[in-house]
Amino acid sequence: MSFTLEKTDQNSAARAGVLTTHHGQVQTPIFMPVGTRASVKAVEQRELEEFGAQIILGNTYHLYLKPGNSIMQQAGGLHKFMSWNKPILTDSGGYQVFSLSDLRDISEEGVLFKSHIDGSKHLFTPENVIETQRIIGSDIMMVLDECPAHDAELSYLKNSSDLTLRWAERCLTHRQKLEPLYGHSQKLFAITQGGINPELRAQSTKSLTSMNFDGYAIGGLAVGEPIEDMYRMLDVSHPLLPETKPRYLMGVGTPHNILNAIERGIDMFDCVIPTREGRNGRVYTRKGTMNLKSAKYATDFRSIDEGFETYVCSTFSRAYIRHLLVVGEIFGLQLCSIHNISFFLWLTKTARKMILTGEFHSWKSEFLAEFEAGED
Amino acid sequence: MSFTLEKTDQNSAARAGVLTTHHGQVQTPIFMPVGTRASVKAVEQRELEEFGAQIILGNTYHLYLKPGNSIMQQAGGLHKFMSWNKPILTDSGGYQVFSLSDLRDISEEGVLFKSHIDGSKHLFTPENVIETQRIIGSDIMMVLDECPAHDAELSYLKNSSDLTLRWAERCLTHRQKLEPLYGHSQKLFAITQGGINPELRAQSTKSLTSMNFDGYAIGGLAVGEPIEDMYRMLDVSHPLLPETKPRYLMGVGTPHNILNAIERGIDMFDCVIPTREGRNGRVYTRKGTMNLKSAKYATDFRSIDEGFETYVCSTFSRAYIRHLLVVGEIFGLQLCSIHNISFFLWLTKTARKMILTGEFHSWKSEFLAEFEAGED
Repeated sequence: MSFTLEKTDQNSAARAGVLTTHHGQVQTPIFMPVGTRASVKAVEQRELEEFGAQIILGNTYHLYLKPGNSIMQQAGGLHKFMSWNKPILTDSGGYQVFSLSDLRDISEEGVLFKSHIDGSKHLFTPENVIETQRIIGSDIMMVLDECPAHDAELSYLKNSSDLTLRWAERCLTHRQKLEPLYGHSQKLFAITQGGINPELRAQSTKSLTSMNFDGYAIGGLAVGEPIEDMYRMLDVSHPLLPETKPRYLMGVGTPHNILNAIERGIDMFDCVIPTREGRNGRVYTRKGTMNLKSAKYATDFRSIDEGFETYVCSTFSRAYIRHLLVVGEIFGLQLCSIHNISFFLWLTKTARKMILTGEFHSWKSEFLAEFEAGED
Repeated sequence: MSFTLEKTDQNSAARAGVLTTHHGQVQTPIFMPVGTRASVKAVEQRELEEFGAQIILGNTYHLYLKPGNSIMQQAGGLHKFMSWNKPILTDSGGYQVFSLSDLRDISEEGVLFKSHIDGSKHLFTPENVIETQRIIGSDIMMVLDECPAHDAELSYLKNSSDLTLRWAERCLTHRQKLEPLYGHSQKLFAITQGGINPELRAQSTKSLTSMNFDGYAIGGLAVGEPIEDMYRMLDVSHPLLPETKPRYLMGVGTPHNILNAIERGIDMFDCVIPTREGRNGRVYTRKGTMNLKSAKYATDFRSIDEGFETYVCSTFSRAYIRHLLVVGEIFGLQLCSIHNISFFLWLTKTARKMILTGEFHSWKSEFLAEFEAGED
């Protein structure tokens, strides 16, 4: 994998680049749909391709529990298992262990946790999450990290950040011992921590960039802290990150968050918002969001976002989708999820185009003004 | 609408024909996917087209309750509402009133019932179900009928069958008073009743065929009676039905039922089996059915039906779909539903081809032998 920087915005740290993997190129900035358990919820793989998805996410924690490493390896890895031939990024499972599991016990060795499915006990170590991701066969693997709560004490934050550093180093060392399983290369991204403390964040970033990772994720943000603190941490981070490597802001976010982070030098994003909110009937448009379950759309025969020329908008009305949602038809969830995924993919694709033409700054202001003035 | 008989099988009453409607032609025998509430559950309209659906069903009872006639009329009818430009058949709502509603009160005027959604009271009359179907704008409307229980007393059955006759005549009369709403013609099918009593069934059929309906449905079967009784009623019915009009066996059925009914001169079928069983993980193959939730498919990387060259079978493995079903991913329901719909469409398409080439009888025997010898 290589990363080529094509252009940096003259008014901001926004950048356009190309990430090359064994399964194809990814044009950044990019939104990565989340396929937690080998499926982007209610969206078909061929539809992801249709709407321009270039890379999707898989969750190591979920895939490790089900179908489990044995089935995954017999399948020949996640690409074959789910019939997705474009790039895949997997997280390390760290975040899910800290947010989903009933019990966790962190030690130098790793993290012991109870499965949220059946209560069974499992140990994630820096080494075995690399092994699991090797079995998944993702194009981009993530290191194991600890993701502390946003209001953690400074002393906890410091110890945690140091532990994440040591774990990152162990991941790197362990990866070098192993050949990829399926004949394609797998790259490894580090994850910076440090909460919203500028010194710790800078220290974590500097330490990790001194090691030779293939890319850098910014972790431990979008976990409940004030949004201005998140942007402040991006302002601290991007000048310290190498220009020639991709940067990934984990778990972010809304169109606002994404554009403000692109402006702060971020290349890659993932978030469950498009599918999770889609399943609740909330859809994204260039004029804000709308809750399609609302009675006011019962006889609104316009498309979700008039003039937005994708499958859902050029085919179905708000009234029809509202009807499906109200009576509980699965197709309603599908249409809202498909629409939102295509909207988020359009957003990063357009941001990229605007960076390349030098219009990012003005377009972002116009887009956000219209988005904020929106309907709901 | 016209119906052209292309060929009748030399060994049986099986026939191949073409039904012409304002929204296109339907090549019979045909399976009609059921789109109860303006959606064939978990299958997209463009996917129905992809897999060869030529006509779908809508349910008047459900569409009358939600979205309701006012929204349907503002939408310009069901074709526009759901973006489906091929033919649509709607039942009259009679069957749902008798199977779903909490309370019903049958009189000469019609049937008073309580909505299964909110308990509100509604009256269906022969006249107003025609009006509702006129607002839906279906290419083929059905008369209001009473569908008695399969074990109804003879005297009840006789009175019910007579009532259905009088209702059919009122539907025909009322239809002649009204112009279609959306500029396309709407045809009207009668429904024969008479339970599994050969004399009553013959009498109902003769009386209805003496009136000028555009096609004939055989109702009140597949409601719990022994399957041989259903076939016996088809044997009674088909010699009495006009050769030049389409024949529709309502609510049927399994591959066995469909092929045995085709052999007895039936042209059209509808059934929720493909989607309902698909949502439970049961899939249809040329070698029988299988429950994909079963642990035995956990590492079975073959396609559902090897050599069956459709989207699902050429793309995904049993193991992958099983994983999706086990973890509860919506995409699992989608894939099983899509597969089953394409299987049932393949079944009637192949039956038609075999009738045209004179091989129906031998193909049916071979198909059913292999199907019965199947996996589950």
